[in-house]
Amino acid sequence: MMKIKVNDNFSRVKESYLFSDIGKKVRAYQAEHPDKKIIRLGIGDVTLPLAPVVIDAMEKAVKEMGVKETFRGYPPEYGYDFLREAVASYYARKGVTLSAEDIFISDGAKSDVGNLVDILGKNTVLIPSPVYPVYLDSNLMSGNKIELLEAGEADGFLGTPDLLDGESYVIYLCSPNNPTGAVYDRAGLKAWVDYALASGSLILFDSAYEAFIKGDYPHSIYAIEGAEKCAIEICSFSKMAGFTGTRCGWTVVSSTLMTEDGYSLKKLWSRRQATKFNGVSYPVQRGAEAALSEIGVKQCAELIAYYAENAKIIATLLDKKGIWYSGGESSPYIWLKCPNGMSSWEFFDYLLTEVQVVGTPGEGFGEAGEGYFRLTAFGSREATEEAVKRLDAIL
Amino acid sequence: MMKIKVNDNFSRVKESYLFSDIGKKVRAYQAEHPDKKIIRLGIGDVTLPLAPVVIDAMEKAVKEMGVKETFRGYPPEYGYDFLREAVASYYARKGVTLSAEDIFISDGAKSDVGNLVDILGKNTVLIPSPVYPVYLDSNLMSGNKIELLEAGEADGFLGTPDLLDGESYVIYLCSPNNPTGAVYDRAGLKAWVDYALASGSLILFDSAYEAFIKGDYPHSIYAIEGAEKCAIEICSFSKMAGFTGTRCGWTVVSSTLMTEDGYSLKKLWSRRQATKFNGVSYPVQRGAEAALSEIGVKQCAELIAYYAENAKIIATLLDKKGIWYSGGESSPYIWLKCPNGMSSWEFFDYLLTEVQVVGTPGEGFGEAGEGYFRLTAFGSREATEEAVKRLDAIL
Repeated sequence: MMKIKVNDNFSRVKESYLFSDIGKKVRAYQAEHPDKKIIRLGIGDVTLPLAPVVIDAMEKAVKEMGVKETFRGYPPEYGYDFLREAVASYYARKGVTLSAEDIFISDGAKSDVGNLVDILGKNTVLIPSPVYPVYLDSNLMSGNKIELLEAGEADGFLGTPDLLDGESYVIYLCSPNNPTGAVYDRAGLKAWVDYALASGSLILFDSAYEAFIKGDYPHSIYAIEGAEKCAIEICSFSKMAGFTGTRCGWTVVSSTLMTEDGYSLKKLWSRRQATKFNGVSYPVQRGAEAALSEIGVKQCAELIAYYAENAKIIATLLDKKGIWYSGGESSPYIWLKCPNGMSSWEFFDYLLTEVQVVGTPGEGFGEAGEGYFRLTAFGSREATEEAVKRLDAIL
Repeated sequence: MMKIKVNDNFSRVKESYLFSDIGKKVRAYQAEHPDKKIIRLGIGDVTLPLAPVVIDAMEKAVKEMGVKETFRGYPPEYGYDFLREAVASYYARKGVTLSAEDIFISDGAKSDVGNLVDILGKNTVLIPSPVYPVYLDSNLMSGNKIELLEAGEADGFLGTPDLLDGESYVIYLCSPNNPTGAVYDRAGLKAWVDYALASGSLILFDSAYEAFIKGDYPHSIYAIEGAEKCAIEICSFSKMAGFTGTRCGWTVVSSTLMTEDGYSLKKLWSRRQATKFNGVSYPVQRGAEAALSEIGVKQCAELIAYYAENAKIIATLLDKKGIWYSGGESSPYIWLKCPNGMSSWEFFDYLLTEVQVVGTPGEGFGEAGEGYFRLTAFGSREATEEAVKRLDAIL
C-alpha cells in the first residue's frame, strides 16, 4: 500500500452529497412504488432547451472546427476576447463598467468558486448559512478556519455584517441566494462593501442567479461603489442561458484588488488559471457570446420568464396556505417553512410518500436551514401545476 | 487595501510563462521586420481540423440541446457513462483492462494534472527535468517539497529510479515525454512501477502523447503489472484527436489505489471533482466518444500520420547534419542539441533572426534542458518543409 500522505482535510467534508442522498431515497421509493409518478422540484437544473441563437452559433463554430482554415487550437486561457468583451458589454447594459481584461472565462461558476481557494492563504472565512455547499466544502478541503454567518426568518435570510468585530475575513455572499431566493437590495450590499473596505476583507460574490432579478436590486456587487477594491464576482451562463449542460461561466478579478502585502489578486488568479486550466471549448464560447447578444438576451429572457411563472404558481399556493417563504420573486427558488414544526427531512419524506413531490431539505444547506425546504421553479409548467395541485390537497 | 493573506507559495513560480516570453520576442522581431515570414514550430498545438466523424457527432449533440425532449442539463461530474465506457474500450483494444467507473472525464489533462495536487498531502515530489512545466508549477504553488530527477543524453532523456534511496515519493512521469519525445519501453516503465510498489510511492503518469507511439512501447502505465496499485494515469483528446480547442481529457483513478493510512485516492478524487467541477459540455463529450469509435480512431490516425511525417522530415535533416536529437519517432516533438555549444536561448535568437524559425528553448522546461531545443511537428507540411529548407542552409 502507498505510504504517501493525502490531504486529510478531506475528512472534514461529508463523504456523500446532499443530492446523492436525495437521489437514493427517491430511487428506493420509486422501486417500491413503480406505479407512482414522482415530480422532481429538487435539483436546481434547467429543463428548457438552449435559445435558437445559441444553437446557431454553436453549430457554426462546430463547422469551423472541421475546416483547416477556420480550425482553432488552444483557446486563450482567460477566454476569447470576443466573449470577454461580450461579458463587459452585458455589464455595461446593467450600468456597471468593467474592463474586459478583468473578466476570466471558465467552464462554470462551480469550478471558479472551488478553485479561487487556491490563491488565498490562511484567513478566517465567513460563510452564510444556509448556502450553496461548495463554499463550505472547498474551504474545509483546504483546512481553512471557518465562521458561519447564520441567517433566518428575522432578517429574511439575508445576513448582515452588523455584529462583526471589524476583523478581516474572506466573505462569501450569494444574491439572489441559493437556496433561500433572498436578494440583497442596494443598502444591504452596501453594508457588506463598506464592512469589507473598512476591515480589509475580500468578498467573493456569487451572482449566478442575477438574471432572475425583478425590480431595483443590484445585479452585480460592482453596482456598489468601492466594490472593485474588495470584491471578486463569479457568474455563470447556467441559469441565465440554460448552460448547465453546456458549461460556461466567468469570474471578475479586477486589477484594483491589492493586498496590504503588495499582492495583486488578478496576477495570482491569472497565474493559477494559466497553470491549471486551458480555456473553454471554442463552440461553447461562441454559444455564450450569442447568449449575450441583443437577440440572445431576449431569447434567454423568455426562458427565465417561463421559470419565473412557475415560481409564481408555487408562491401563490403558499400565500393561500399562509406558509412563510422567501424567494420566488427574483429567484427560481422558493424557500418555505416546513409546516407543523416538521424537520426538513421529515417534510421531505412526507411530500415524497404522500404526494410524490421531491424537494430539497433545508438542513442540507447548513444547520440554519433546518425546518425549511427548497422548491425549484425549473420543472415544466405541467409538472409544476400538478405538484401544486397535489400540495394544495395536503398542506 | 485588503488585509487578507494570499497563498504566498505563488511567489515560488515565475511570474510569466515560457510561451508568453517567446510570444513577446517573436512579436517584437516581427514588428521590426514586417516583411519576414516567420514559421512557428514552437507551441505544441495542433493545426489540422477535427475528424469528420467528430464534427458530425458534435453537430448532432448541439441540435439535441436545442430541443426540449433531447436537451441535457448538468452532466454527471465524472463524465457520461457513454464516454467513460468508450475510454475503457479504447484501453481494452490496447490490451489494458480498466473499469469505466475508474475513468474520470475532464476538460483536459492540464486541469487534472494541476488539480490532482488538491487531494495529496505534504510529500516529497519527484519531477523529471526537463519536463512539461505544469508538474513543477502546480507543486510549487502548493508549497510541496520537490526533488528534480535530471535526465540527459546519457540516458536518452529517460530518467530511471536506479539512484533513489527507497523513500516514498509522488513521482511524475510523462511518456512519450514532453518536451524530449523520449519513450519508455516496457522494462523502463516496469522499473518505475517496481520502485513505486516497493517504496510505497504514487506515480502520476501523463500519457497525453500515447497515440503517437510506434512499435512495441507501452501506451499506458497499466500495461505494467501492479501499476493499478501505485499509479494514476492522465490522458487527453488534445493530441490524439486534435481537441486542443475542444477540451476533453480523462484521468484514471482506480479503486485499488489505497494508502497505508486507509485513504482511497478514488474517493478523494471523486469528492474533489464533485465539489469543484461540474462536468464537461455534452456536445464535447459526444465528439470525444466519436473520436474513440472504430471509424473515429481511423480518422484520427490519419491526422497523427500527417504530423508524424512532419516529424520524420525534420529528423531526416538532423540525421543528415549529424545533430543529436531524441523524439520524432513516437512523438510529435524533436528535442535536439543546440549546435556549436550554443545555449538554448542563443539558439532560439539565432533561428529567429537568421531564418525566422521559432522553436522552444529547452531551458524553459528546466535547467537540465539547457543547451537543447524543441521543434514540433504540428505545423503544416508546407511550413515544415520550408522550415527544414531554411535550417538546412544554416546548420
